[in-house]
Amino acid sequence: MEQFLSRRAASITPYQAGEQPQGSDIIKLNTNENPYPPSPKALAVLQSFGGEKLRLYPKPDGGVLKSAVAEVYGFDEDYVFCGNGSDEVLGLAFQAFFDENIVFPDITYSFYPVWADLFSISYKTVPLRDDFTVPVNELVGDGVVLANPNAPTGIALSLAEIERILQNNSDHVVIIDEAYASFGAGSVASLVPKNPNLLVVSTLSKSHSLAGLRVAFALGQPHLIDGLVRIKDSFNSYPLDMIAQEAAAAALRDTEYCAAMSAKVVSTRERTAQQLGELGFTVLPSHANFVFASHPQVSAAALKSYLSEHGIYVRHFNKPRIYDFLRITMGTDEQMDALIESIKGFVYSVSC
Amino acid sequence: MEQFLSRRAASITPYQAGEQPQGSDIIKLNTNENPYPPSPKALAVLQSFGGEKLRLYPKPDGGVLKSAVAEVYGFDEDYVFCGNGSDEVLGLAFQAFFDENIVFPDITYSFYPVWADLFSISYKTVPLRDDFTVPVNELVGDGVVLANPNAPTGIALSLAEIERILQNNSDHVVIIDEAYASFGAGSVASLVPKNPNLLVVSTLSKSHSLAGLRVAFALGQPHLIDGLVRIKDSFNSYPLDMIAQEAAAAALRDTEYCAAMSAKVVSTRERTAQQLGELGFTVLPSHANFVFASHPQVSAAALKSYLSEHGIYVRHFNKPRIYDFLRITMGTDEQMDALIESIKGFVYSVSC
Repeated sequence: MEQFLSRRAASITPYQAGEQPQGSDIIKLNTNENPYPPSPKALAVLQSFGGEKLRLYPKPDGGVLKSAVAEVYGFDEDYVFCGNGSDEVLGLAFQAFFDENIVFPDITYSFYPVWADLFSISYKTVPLRDDFTVPVNELVGDGVVLANPNAPTGIALSLAEIERILQNNSDHVVIIDEAYASFGAGSVASLVPKNPNLLVVSTLSKSHSLAGLRVAFALGQPHLIDGLVRIKDSFNSYPLDMIAQEAAAAALRDTEYCAAMSAKVVSTRERTAQQLGELGFTVLPSHANFVFASHPQVSAAALKSYLSEHGIYVRHFNKPRIYDFLRITMGTDEQMDALIESIKGFVYSVSC
Repeated sequence: MEQFLSRRAASITPYQAGEQPQGSDIIKLNTNENPYPPSPKALAVLQSFGGEKLRLYPKPDGGVLKSAVAEVYGFDEDYVFCGNGSDEVLGLAFQAFFDENIVFPDITYSFYPVWADLFSISYKTVPLRDDFTVPVNELVGDGVVLANPNAPTGIALSLAEIERILQNNSDHVVIIDEAYASFGAGSVASLVPKNPNLLVVSTLSKSHSLAGLRVAFALGQPHLIDGLVRIKDSFNSYPLDMIAQEAAAAALRDTEYCAAMSAKVVSTRERTAQQLGELGFTVLPSHANFVFASHPQVSAAALKSYLSEHGIYVRHFNKPRIYDFLRITMGTDEQMDALIESIKGFVYSVSC
């Protein structure tokens, strides 16, 4: 029944998200979810939400959330775009700003080449250095997209390095995808006022424990926001439902709670990295809510299978340069203790 | 700052949704919202929703809603696709099934040409007959999209006429966009098992009073659903948030409530059409939750302005063939009484 597919549908290779195993006794460390609940203020919004008004359309620009983003980041509202998760915002941005010859690292969020293919945007990838850092001056093209911290490595660039990329590409849009910025790297939003080519994309999925609500936003100068709106209004006018707008706004304004939960995740990450190091793993220096680790004597694929048999899910990418690595999301300390114990069992059995 | 826009962003003309005026004392009859609240069963789901689980990603296929759709329509789950409003589902379907030379009526949902332009799909429009009915046998192309009932006319085709379109285009996908099917026309989903080229797109915005929740679905044979999934998974993996999935599923299963509210809307429509007729309006025979009406002595644009000055919002399309018409959404009987009184004031002043 291929006959009914468009040429683009027949030719693309869709993105594959991490598996979503169900069950209360599993330990799910494979899709970078936050182990802590959303802000109590967001939960209070849900409790008091008056469902009768759902008969009406929501604000098409995600206005309720937009106000909160503007307030928290200290921008005017015309610097803010809201969308249905950062995948949607990035997918719209690719359409709004890119035609051809864009660049991104060879090892990064694997959705970037998928959007490029879907929208017929040619791209070239720039190899990360051997230590998986980004060769900043090589990222030059007719458009750049960069995750900072990068995924799945967790390695972050400094503000000065991001500025260099912006300067090296001053005639083209540079998208900084900072899904993991709250876990130590910090946002590059402060660069927006001086850089008309910078679009910062952020999501509440990880930092605010709201993966289930599908909320993200972009920050950029108004001409870039207008470009995003042009594409949104040519695809789906109202991507953010009323409840998501209100709950996300409350979560975003609760900056104290976000900081406290992020600090807990960072503390767990440092502890876990040390424990993995003691077991012989190489752990890349992460500023995200995950670590990327490999072991000289252990097959990452085999360890992943072993862990899933024991109810612990981590992510393995069957790709060149990184097939020896596992990406491990930070759970609670208790969950990470269970992970370490399980890994010990496997490592010792392999080493003996 | 046009320099940063892609060629597609610079060249498109976005869809313009109806305005969303705020205020409790206005009568909003311009965006086809349902005047009655969502099912109490959906509201109960909102009340009891445990927000803690929002830290996790939702089911990527909208699984909770998918089960409900399959159950209510009597299909297997692989006949169902769920999305963020019918605009998203239609936008994905255009990408999944159309390359070039698609057809739709000259007067129809004005998003169709916008998607075609955004995704570089050539199209031709088939003029409606003078009475605004669809010339069924002329709808032949490498893909068809048809709103049934049509918008903004409200006129519906019969099941037999839809079958003829399917047969006339057996090698290409025919999308039937039935956003307004619950108000008398009925669904054409019964044609899905026998027609491998039929994709039915439905939304809960109007029929289930859930415009604020952004929920829609498509029904088709599994090869078409697979095509939609390929595009979705190349654009935005998780478009439906957890709350929307659960509340929409409860609303959809409450078929009795939907039927009762739809019957009220239909009764108001028949009453309103008669009253408008008595005032000298021509009212097209509607099977939707709106009427499309024109008056031989009254400028539609002027009446629209007059009504909005009196806090009543209706929709006027400044387009060839229909600029003498207003599209009026059905509110409650009380709201329609206020509309009729207001129109009387204007019509009498113009006629005298």
